[in-house]
Amino acid sequence: MVIVMLPGAEPDDVDAVVDRVEGAGGQAFVSRGLSRVIIGLIGDVELFESLNLSGMPGVGQVTRVSTEYKLVSREQHPDRSVVHVRGVPIGPGTVTLIAGPCAVETPEQTLAAARMAQASGATMLRGGAFKPRTSPYAFQGLGELGLRILADVREETGLPVVTEVVSAHDVDMVAEYADMLQIGTRNMQNFALLQAIGEARVPVMLKRGMNSTIQEWLMAAEYIAQRGNLEIVLCERGIRTFETATRNTLDVSAVPVVQRLSHLPVIVDPSHSGGSRDLVIPLSRAGIVAGADGIIVDVHPEPEAALCDGPQALVREDLDQLALSVAELTAFMRRQPARRRYSSAS
Amino acid sequence: MVIVMLPGAEPDDVDAVVDRVEGAGGQAFVSRGLSRVIIGLIGDVELFESLNLSGMPGVGQVTRVSTEYKLVSREQHPDRSVVHVRGVPIGPGTVTLIAGPCAVETPEQTLAAARMAQASGATMLRGGAFKPRTSPYAFQGLGELGLRILADVREETGLPVVTEVVSAHDVDMVAEYADMLQIGTRNMQNFALLQAIGEARVPVMLKRGMNSTIQEWLMAAEYIAQRGNLEIVLCERGIRTFETATRNTLDVSAVPVVQRLSHLPVIVDPSHSGGSRDLVIPLSRAGIVAGADGIIVDVHPEPEAALCDGPQALVREDLDQLALSVAELTAFMRRQPARRRYSSAS
Amino acid sequence: MVIVMLPGAEPDDVDAVVDRVEGAGGQAFVSRGLSRVIIGLIGDVELFESLNLSGMPGVGQVTRVSTEYKLVSREQHPDRSVVHVRGVPIGPGTVTLIAGPCAVETPEQTLAAARMAQASGATMLRGGAFKPRTSPYAFQGLGELGLRILADVREETGLPVVTEVVSAHDVDMVAEYADMLQIGTRNMQNFALLQAIGEARVPVMLKRGMNSTIQEWLMAAEYIAQRGNLEIVLCERGIRTFETATRNTLDVSAVPVVQRLSHLPVIVDPSHSGGSRDLVIPLSRAGIVAGADGIIVDVHPEPEAALCDGPQALVREDLDQLALSVAELTAFMRRQPARRRYSSAS
Amino acid sequence: MVIVMLPGAEPDDVDAVVDRVEGAGGQAFVSRGLSRVIIGLIGDVELFESLNLSGMPGVGQVTRVSTEYKLVSREQHPDRSVVHVRGVPIGPGTVTLIAGPCAVETPEQTLAAARMAQASGATMLRGGAFKPRTSPYAFQGLGELGLRILADVREETGLPVVTEVVSAHDVDMVAEYADMLQIGTRNMQNFALLQAIGEARVPVMLKRGMNSTIQEWLMAAEYIAQRGNLEIVLCERGIRTFETATRNTLDVSAVPVVQRLSHLPVIVDPSHSGGSRDLVIPLSRAGIVAGADGIIVDVHPEPEAALCDGPQALVREDLDQLALSVAELTAFMRRQPARRRYSSAS
Repeated sequence: MVIVMLPGAEPDDVDAVVDRVEGAGGQAFVSRGLSRVIIGLIGDVELFESLNLSGMPGVGQVTRVSTEYKLVSREQHPDRSVVHVRGVPIGPGTVTLIAGPCAVETPEQTLAAARMAQASGATMLRGGAFKPRTSPYAFQGLGELGLRILADVREETGLPVVTEVVSAHDVDMVAEYADMLQIGTRNMQNFALLQAIGEARVPVMLKRGMNSTIQEWLMAAEYIAQRGNLEIVLCERGIRTFETATRNTLDVSAVPVVQRLSHLPVIVDPSHSGGSRDLVIPLSRAGIVAGADGIIVDVHPEPEAALCDGPQALVREDLDQLALSVAELTAFMRRQPARRRYSSAS
Repeated sequence: MVIVMLPGAEPDDVDAVVDRVEGAGGQAFVSRGLSRVIIGLIGDVELFESLNLSGMPGVGQVTRVSTEYKLVSREQHPDRSVVHVRGVPIGPGTVTLIAGPCAVETPEQTLAAARMAQASGATMLRGGAFKPRTSPYAFQGLGELGLRILADVREETGLPVVTEVVSAHDVDMVAEYADMLQIGTRNMQNFALLQAIGEARVPVMLKRGMNSTIQEWLMAAEYIAQRGNLEIVLCERGIRTFETATRNTLDVSAVPVVQRLSHLPVIVDPSHSGGSRDLVIPLSRAGIVAGADGIIVDVHPEPEAALCDGPQALVREDLDQLALSVAELTAFMRRQPARRRYSSAS
Repeated sequence: MVIVMLPGAEPDDVDAVVDRVEGAGGQAFVSRGLSRVIIGLIGDVELFESLNLSGMPGVGQVTRVSTEYKLVSREQHPDRSVVHVRGVPIGPGTVTLIAGPCAVETPEQTLAAARMAQASGATMLRGGAFKPRTSPYAFQGLGELGLRILADVREETGLPVVTEVVSAHDVDMVAEYADMLQIGTRNMQNFALLQAIGEARVPVMLKRGMNSTIQEWLMAAEYIAQRGNLEIVLCERGIRTFETATRNTLDVSAVPVVQRLSHLPVIVDPSHSGGSRDLVIPLSRAGIVAGADGIIVDVHPEPEAALCDGPQALVREDLDQLALSVAELTAFMRRQPARRRYSSAS
Repeated sequence: MVIVMLPGAEPDDVDAVVDRVEGAGGQAFVSRGLSRVIIGLIGDVELFESLNLSGMPGVGQVTRVSTEYKLVSREQHPDRSVVHVRGVPIGPGTVTLIAGPCAVETPEQTLAAARMAQASGATMLRGGAFKPRTSPYAFQGLGELGLRILADVREETGLPVVTEVVSAHDVDMVAEYADMLQIGTRNMQNFALLQAIGEARVPVMLKRGMNSTIQEWLMAAEYIAQRGNLEIVLCERGIRTFETATRNTLDVSAVPVVQRLSHLPVIVDPSHSGGSRDLVIPLSRAGIVAGADGIIVDVHPEPEAALCDGPQALVREDLDQLALSVAELTAFMRRQPARRRYSSAS
């Protein structure tokens, strides 16, 4: 059962609902978005219906839901959401380009990549300081040092930063440096991490597990939402199939399917799905016209020297083509480029 | 080993090469395209190199190739090919829209669907008379009666016809009615059928096996080419993955990957991959901007009454949006719409 | 709707049922097994129920079935079936070992492999004369010459022969030489071939498509049964997954699942699923204790010289271990080894 | 590069090697097993070879390895390992049966399940207190209360306990109650958790990610080994494929493949792979004869009332058949049942 509070509901109104539910032996999970509060209830639905919740102050709508995800479902929330990252919107009216290096290696490399990102029209910077790697002998990232480099480059360029967090223990620390936290494909069902981020007050990008169904992905988002954080952007990054010609298979159909099921924004990562540089621009285009709310790509000033995923990074020669494709196809989709609209403390 | 003959090579030149190869115990497969002849050799490569084939009249280039497909490879044939179907081009300069009913049911339904196809800008008609169905209790198509309906509708509308053939035994019969033969996903490795079509002189659309790698798909095309037919168009139609939210997963990356490996045109079928009507237009767009040389879609005047795959057929209300998307994105790709340029006896 | 005729029903009784069904606008498919006749009806079930079919002479049971396969379903036929191949049983009371070379290469190699097969306890010989190969440049088999070799080796050893047929056109010719026809994994949905074999009066081994669900596999068997041939043995041979350490992934669970759904015997092919010699014996064991009615393995006198799949063939040193495993585990399963019980003209 | 220390090597010997490697700018990871110490080196191999490590006291063998997993590889350690859990061996000489409830619900249910486990010959108890569930609205386990129940039941029955840990933060707490920690399929690439368990001194059962290759699985084990814990048992529990007739597809081939590549013991979980009760015994048998070092199954006194995975739990009527199958097939494999040989403080 889900309760959508009215726009002007007071904190006391929310508390009163929670008290009544818990007094009846149920559990209530409060999720606060920018413009609304949603309360998810777990327990005996028959009992809840006897509590007259819809008559309480501040309560908008009370609904029984049948899907296994409630707070992120479009059923209760037909308007698609916009998530703002330090003023940069990600959502239905815009196409947001996010670019940067796969891994932060040095201040120089990171700044150079950020300048490349801006040159191609990007308004957000990506970069990994904590890298979950299949092999324990591969480069695992610079850790907190990498986060400091990212924060410095944000100072320099004005680009908000998204970066991965790999452990519940690190969430607060990473959130001090970054504007948006990324949950990587291997951690999509790391429920302890999902819950820790659910309790943080920071936007999150949830990558699809490379082997997860769309339903499992939305349930993972629900774990975050249930703890109170609705500032979630989904990211399709390719799934594992029998095909070996590409690293993973970009499931471009997931974009319209997710938008039918959920109000959350969804973007596409063409770099990690294809795994090769010459696929990035075709797949970026495909993502945009399938309806994606943004694109996240790897760029690197010197891919042949990259410590991580060099073969898939775009280089300077690619930037004009990327910028042109994003601009033309954003117009084709009757959307705007995503510009930073205001500064937030975030 | 592959021999590319010069443009002006005589039939006798080709025969002479074949004789010399066979005289040395090898096998020679001659493939005739519109503008060139290619001869593939099987046997002892060292021996072939001692035969001085490159000095023979009409011989252009002699090359050792390492891939398992030779005649369809782009290595020997860097320019991407154009296949003409009764004057309608499918290839790098154009985007060809093919539309029609999944199955031919009645003359009226087929004509109505063809008119819908034309209204959306299609210049070729699709329609199934022989339907390979998973269940023996499902509608299997009208057979030759369906072919006659298709030929009548071609008379009426001028649209060249592509239709599926499911058995080597039927190839000649189907080729009498159709302008292009389709090999369906379940028959991609029906080698007897591939070889029979290789011996026919008619363009062919080879759908990717829903569980086949790109390499296996190109080797299936090689079976056709090896028997002499290079008028092959590949069609990506979705692969089988663990995801159940869509019927299959459209592998849009396959378009640029195939174009890197092979000179053959490649088109996309968004109807059968997604399996639902609301995915057809987003996936059509995605296919075009990924570089597809065409799109093939199901349309039906009354999908709720369709005998086959009704839920995925576009209806009249969708046509304007389809036509607009194809037109705008064809321009974005700096291509032309594929108009019928001349009449051929096919 | 399915009609099971009584054991002593006359041909005239069957004809009468067919006439009544067709007279009412329905279709009737007659399948003749060794001990029973089953008639599958397609059309308007309500109408059929008004025809009083159950009161007609020779009619045993009339049932509405809900699955998409009827004749092969266990619902109508709770006792699991036994298929006899020239007197060798394959079914619930026995474990049948079938062995031989992947491809027939020479009379000497085939006879040597057959002797190896016998030494390990095999009572049937496998061997390929028509080889469907992914690459058109790979060895495609000896064709009819290979069939003649197999027939000669059967003379010599007394082992009934199972061999693959790849085209509807070849069914009669192959059936003249072989005791059992094999439909390979790539042809599981070659419906023209299924129907042609359905009309032949010869036992068939239907391999699972490497990408086919169990339900699709049973529907493919239904295509054969529908045309009148119920002498079908299913063969699990591994499915395609993301794992690359083995050629395919043996789906050993398919054995009990199939036996729950269908009355047809099911055997396991550990050679083609694993693709490597050292996996053959562990997977053979696994198949038997999961309940398989038999095992089919590749053996070769000189695998390093094999023209096809040498790396997976068992060699002489493996035979004792294979024989011992099959014998001990057949006893563990409270079954008998499958000995030839009588000679049939087959 | 990997250094295997001699059995009698002193701690000082190990420290000296580490100092020399780190002094040269390399990294050294020390793994302590019961009977040996292995040191994995990361850095410049050429440099390491100049350090004369093989001449240092206590050093047994120094080897360059090419695989991406070193410490768990069989290359350096040809004898397969035995892991002891409070005196119960898991390894090549025995077949260990582990049984218990999917989730700990009440003291009574847990004790009843443990008694069932013992009746079927089990010498270890499984039971979940922390349950990672796809849906946030599903039962998530009793947490520490569940651990206390497990510890009480161990008191009562003498069965060592294996239970799942889902967060790096909980490792020490869970290790206080349990004899073996389980890493579940969704956490196989939760590298923070792997590393935390690597630093604990407690045996671990690492389930295969349902979408992970065998190579990725061994690299996950390497993460644990690299931090010093070699008491690792691998558990195959089914992989995700296109087949929907079973919950997952048990990859029984993984057992011999893993044993060829790694010295670690490997067991099979037939309950979670098949997802249905009637598959558990056939798949248990298949696992044992494929060479598994043990089997882990769900049992429940009242499956219809279970809070988690009831449909796959064995009930009392199944126990005799399970016990018989395990006993007979353990003998067939020339192994012993795994009895507790000594008491350890663990």
